[in-house]
Amino acid sequence: MADKKELRIGLIGCGFMGRTHTNGYKRVNDFFPEVEYRPVLKTVCARTEEKVRAFADQWQYESIETDWREVVARDDIDAVDICTPNSTHEEIAVAAAEAGKMVLCEKPLARDVEEGQRMVDAIEKAGVPNTVWYNYRRVPAVSLIKDIIDSGKLGRIFHYRANFLQDFTINPDVPQGGEALWRLDKEVAGSGVTGDLLAHCIDTAMWLNGGIRDVSAVAETFVKERMHQETGKEEKVEIDDACIFHCHFDNGSLGLFEATRYARGHKALYTLEINGENASLRWDLHDMNRLEFFDYEDDPEVRGWSSIHVTEGEQPYMDKWWVPGLSIGYEHTFVHQVADFLSSLAEGEPCSPTFREAQETQKVCEAILDSASSGSWKETGVDWS
Amino acid sequence: MADKKELRIGLIGCGFMGRTHTNGYKRVNDFFPEVEYRPVLKTVCARTEEKVRAFADQWQYESIETDWREVVARDDIDAVDICTPNSTHEEIAVAAAEAGKMVLCEKPLARDVEEGQRMVDAIEKAGVPNTVWYNYRRVPAVSLIKDIIDSGKLGRIFHYRANFLQDFTINPDVPQGGEALWRLDKEVAGSGVTGDLLAHCIDTAMWLNGGIRDVSAVAETFVKERMHQETGKEEKVEIDDACIFHCHFDNGSLGLFEATRYARGHKALYTLEINGENASLRWDLHDMNRLEFFDYEDDPEVRGWSSIHVTEGEQPYMDKWWVPGLSIGYEHTFVHQVADFLSSLAEGEPCSPTFREAQETQKVCEAILDSASSGSWKETGVDWS
Amino acid sequence: MADKKELRIGLIGCGFMGRTHTNGYKRVNDFFPEVEYRPVLKTVCARTEEKVRAFADQWQYESIETDWREVVARDDIDAVDICTPNSTHEEIAVAAAEAGKMVLCEKPLARDVEEGQRMVDAIEKAGVPNTVWYNYRRVPAVSLIKDIIDSGKLGRIFHYRANFLQDFTINPDVPQGGEALWRLDKEVAGSGVTGDLLAHCIDTAMWLNGGIRDVSAVAETFVKERMHQETGKEEKVEIDDACIFHCHFDNGSLGLFEATRYARGHKALYTLEINGENASLRWDLHDMNRLEFFDYEDDPEVRGWSSIHVTEGEQPYMDKWWVPGLSIGYEHTFVHQVADFLSSLAEGEPCSPTFREAQETQKVCEAILDSASSGSWKETGVDWS
Amino acid sequence: MADKKELRIGLIGCGFMGRTHTNGYKRVNDFFPEVEYRPVLKTVCARTEEKVRAFADQWQYESIETDWREVVARDDIDAVDICTPNSTHEEIAVAAAEAGKMVLCEKPLARDVEEGQRMVDAIEKAGVPNTVWYNYRRVPAVSLIKDIIDSGKLGRIFHYRANFLQDFTINPDVPQGGEALWRLDKEVAGSGVTGDLLAHCIDTAMWLNGGIRDVSAVAETFVKERMHQETGKEEKVEIDDACIFHCHFDNGSLGLFEATRYARGHKALYTLEINGENASLRWDLHDMNRLEFFDYEDDPEVRGWSSIHVTEGEQPYMDKWWVPGLSIGYEHTFVHQVADFLSSLAEGEPCSPTFREAQETQKVCEAILDSASSGSWKETGVDWS
Repeated sequence: MADKKELRIGLIGCGFMGRTHTNGYKRVNDFFPEVEYRPVLKTVCARTEEKVRAFADQWQYESIETDWREVVARDDIDAVDICTPNSTHEEIAVAAAEAGKMVLCEKPLARDVEEGQRMVDAIEKAGVPNTVWYNYRRVPAVSLIKDIIDSGKLGRIFHYRANFLQDFTINPDVPQGGEALWRLDKEVAGSGVTGDLLAHCIDTAMWLNGGIRDVSAVAETFVKERMHQETGKEEKVEIDDACIFHCHFDNGSLGLFEATRYARGHKALYTLEINGENASLRWDLHDMNRLEFFDYEDDPEVRGWSSIHVTEGEQPYMDKWWVPGLSIGYEHTFVHQVADFLSSLAEGEPCSPTFREAQETQKVCEAILDSASSGSWKETGVDWS
Repeated sequence: MADKKELRIGLIGCGFMGRTHTNGYKRVNDFFPEVEYRPVLKTVCARTEEKVRAFADQWQYESIETDWREVVARDDIDAVDICTPNSTHEEIAVAAAEAGKMVLCEKPLARDVEEGQRMVDAIEKAGVPNTVWYNYRRVPAVSLIKDIIDSGKLGRIFHYRANFLQDFTINPDVPQGGEALWRLDKEVAGSGVTGDLLAHCIDTAMWLNGGIRDVSAVAETFVKERMHQETGKEEKVEIDDACIFHCHFDNGSLGLFEATRYARGHKALYTLEINGENASLRWDLHDMNRLEFFDYEDDPEVRGWSSIHVTEGEQPYMDKWWVPGLSIGYEHTFVHQVADFLSSLAEGEPCSPTFREAQETQKVCEAILDSASSGSWKETGVDWS
Repeated sequence: MADKKELRIGLIGCGFMGRTHTNGYKRVNDFFPEVEYRPVLKTVCARTEEKVRAFADQWQYESIETDWREVVARDDIDAVDICTPNSTHEEIAVAAAEAGKMVLCEKPLARDVEEGQRMVDAIEKAGVPNTVWYNYRRVPAVSLIKDIIDSGKLGRIFHYRANFLQDFTINPDVPQGGEALWRLDKEVAGSGVTGDLLAHCIDTAMWLNGGIRDVSAVAETFVKERMHQETGKEEKVEIDDACIFHCHFDNGSLGLFEATRYARGHKALYTLEINGENASLRWDLHDMNRLEFFDYEDDPEVRGWSSIHVTEGEQPYMDKWWVPGLSIGYEHTFVHQVADFLSSLAEGEPCSPTFREAQETQKVCEAILDSASSGSWKETGVDWS
Repeated sequence: MADKKELRIGLIGCGFMGRTHTNGYKRVNDFFPEVEYRPVLKTVCARTEEKVRAFADQWQYESIETDWREVVARDDIDAVDICTPNSTHEEIAVAAAEAGKMVLCEKPLARDVEEGQRMVDAIEKAGVPNTVWYNYRRVPAVSLIKDIIDSGKLGRIFHYRANFLQDFTINPDVPQGGEALWRLDKEVAGSGVTGDLLAHCIDTAMWLNGGIRDVSAVAETFVKERMHQETGKEEKVEIDDACIFHCHFDNGSLGLFEATRYARGHKALYTLEINGENASLRWDLHDMNRLEFFDYEDDPEVRGWSSIHVTEGEQPYMDKWWVPGLSIGYEHTFVHQVADFLSSLAEGEPCSPTFREAQETQKVCEAILDSASSGSWKETGVDWS
């Protein structure tokens, strides 16, 4: 460890994502001993001093800040990690880039394409390493899908479908706004399930299946008014509670996506399936260590969907963990992204998804919202080459 | 048996559906001894004498015909069952109705709304008993869904989704047209997966969740030309190979539907899910004796999706078959529909879905095809009250 | 049909098994048109005239009898099918054989080895065609297991395990004896779960994996006394409510078997798994159209348990039924056994399992019961060469 | 963190279990901030200096040792954690106890009952806190089973069954002995699957269902000779490759257990099921976040096996991790055991399973091996009151 280079982290935001990222920094050297960098938890920042102090104490950050500008200004910070609500991403990222910091930004990149573009411009002008935490790419089973597709095994692709189903806002007494529920406040979040859930599905989809060309969407807000935690009043809910779209990919395949927070019985049911001429693949976050695979070239008498328990050393990332048959969990995806970020630093390569790539997802999200409000197809303008 | 009334059947068409219907007629009295009617296999009709003779011999029809007009004209026929390609439904059904025969018609009712309307008009003018073979309503697990919904258990409905995935036309060497593959010939079939597969999904959906108000669809023909079996030439494929649509139901819920013949690994994967405020339900034709049920009112510590093996005497139709734990199959849905048709005759009630109900499904299909070609939302005009 | 040879059936017993066998006779020519015989439902026999008359009327038997000796004596009967309680199998089978009738006997063959041996001797002395209804061999997925094993795919076998779990006698108020519950009466049934459930598991196991050499068993009677329906009194329960045994097969593999009527939540959960050096197989009656298959020779990166939906024309019996993806059910196993019996008649071959083979299962059952009562290993004396 | 008490750890052994335990110590304060102790990685010990130095560097132990006696002798060590092969457990544990150290010992406690008893005697004489790493009790789904059973929900228990299936020694070229494969060397391991795999199953079983009274077992060594890594010669394999036993529990229920390293397709398939009068439960390590639950009191029309995704805050340990729907993995069981050990220290309570409890499992293992070699039932002598 002594010979590793330090990467001094300044974390902005100490909510749920603050925990997942921090855990990634703290675990990476235990399990990826070959990476040349060692993250150092230099500082964590949040507006409420009491809260950030408790977080720093629990996770052992060396110091705290209550104004993110201080973090950006500090000389002893190499990388700024943005885990704050969406409405703050642009300002922090641009300032950090201008200060020459590396930037790791929680998804979605921004509230809209315009913000996102300014962020990409700033980060690329500064030329700093950057990444956006679309962590589901780094579930080993999902990474394995990528390998299988890249091997050419599937042949021509006909269909891609993904869902992200939750049920946590069915109760109309759930308020909007405030620290825990800013995702229901359009001003802060930018959108509802589109930026929160579909963005994940779109990032994975374009990584696996290429650019999305055009979209046709429908959105719905099932509960029209909710008490706002900051005003204490019933206010109109402006985010999308549910959103469905179909689309064309650049490769000619049809896509079908759905996200909702009103699917009773599902907590985080992110599922995806891809159907090719010669093979198909299926995955489900609730059973994240499994991949289902149908290979048309198998002997017809015994052909079926194979349930692959992705825990073998030959499979992505799994040589780092335990032994075959033993599962890993959700948090490991963040450890993987940290490991890949550190490796890419050492190699001087970008760590995907970069701001630029995440901005392509932003374009799809905006086309979806436009389509949903206009009732017509929208071109995305995505360039995924 | 001696005291049962005879119902003398004239079957038109002796393909796959001819077999499933005939099996229904032959089994019904063995398993539903209480029904007052006894189907008699009076005659079967197809254009090729050799083929229809072999069918009649195998299934023990009393006679054969090679012109459907003869069947309609016979005095010893009570009910005409139409199992021929879609393009012939109207002509036969109208003639049969005018001859005062009961009419049982294979789905979809017609190639389009116009044809369907003439059929409804004729059948209602004649006042004859009628039904359309949307058989999946009578899978016991699906019938159980209906019971659960009717009990009010689900509360407000937010989402309904259904897929019907097949893979049998991926190979571009599969020809179109002719006896086995008329479903690929637009002139004969009217449409591709919309009339063949989505029609099933729509019938079930409206039965369970009420009318579909408007739709937004996309369709695709992946293989643009196929050899036509009648001309022997490569000809343009005009049917939809795949079709996806989202919609609003009258009750405010969002619907999402997809059908394709290009989903490698799926043979007849008809799945449906409905999410209500208080409970959700999920079903899959490949495991047709199972129903999955999530009840939010269960104790949170042990709440989960329950996998119900629908083989208990308390469950729809299952007191007629074997003992708990023992499965039934696809063909039983047709036996159930025959049983219900015979019971409804005895009671003087309509047997759902009637031509009138099936015509509502036709309207949704037409709106889907219109939307797919225009790229805009379409009102269906459905009246499901 | 006219040119088929008649096989005139005399059915003894009209309970649950009377229904399944009769259904087999009535369906076989519809689905197996190539078989040269046509079963004719000549007569059905049961002691209670009213009951047998209703059965004959429902299923369309030509006549009824109330004394099985009359059936055996009739000249117009070719085959006697025994569906009565176990205690009557020997007497009827021996008399039928001596009268030169073919004999189809419901499993288990007998109450014990001694009875079974007299039956085998009589049937072989008479030289009449015979079979025992171990129907689960003819579930297509189970037949497919046999094909895969015979292909040598599995290599050396290490393990075979099977369960048959039910829950219908947990309630101590369930009585014993009488028409519906003779399976709980040792005098009539011979044993409890051993003859009723383990016998099925053993028949399949030896068919797939060869002879069982020795056994070590434990049995339990959880409810010690139950009201007897014939005496109206609480009487000691003498059958085994649950029985577990492990064993050695002749091929050196280890076997593990369990049956019970006290496994809450399971109705007819017959599962089996076989582990070979190169591949493993798993099956479950509750999802009877599926077979799970693990092939060690698959590419390690995508190796998993394949879930095969056994509904393809290439798979055993499935070319007779519907199209890929569409399920069949429990009753079809009996249709398959009838078809195979009729084919074997035409070819002059025995129809497995014969009385002789079923007697080997009887030997294992007896060794199990002996081991359970003595607490020591028992040789079975099975000769499965 | 500053106010937490230090618990200075001396780890003996740096193989697979060294990693899992160390990870437990390093994670516990991040996720269980309320525990009063803070583990300090004081020293790690292994015979090969190079190997232990690399381990210490990777996991950040403060120092290394190459003789465990040095660890035991150090004043700055509070707790000795034994992760070495079974043959060394006794000597280290006894010395550590005599030196007044707390002792955490990897399972199985010992090679046999005699060794185990000396360990229990020493630890209890010294009166030091102790625990044995039967980690599977602390899978949240398994802990939930315990809660459900303790609630009385199941009523009278009839059956308990468990398997632990692996396939890693099928290849006869796998050698025995040495660092990686000492589990195949009887001298070092004490036994094969009995101590390695069945011990886990027995610990969980007695925790959930009470003492095991007597056992009847069979064991097999499929590959009779393997090259020994230390001698370089083919030597007789003396451990059990596979072992099956049935048993009586003190509560009158029947148990059935099987473990093997020859079940092709299974890596670490630890499954268990318990059937009670009123409810049943089922769990499987390959899908470790799920629990299946059947409740007979549910409405018969919708009764089924519920698949509970054990990721809710109400469920054991899950309030410490992420949000509902997001999985944890294998390693978390060790974090939980560390957390519970630290809590029990604070409360002055024993941390189950203690050496004394683990010794009861030892008794069952010895009875199994005795029964397997003698072919007769053996009393275990377990006292689980």
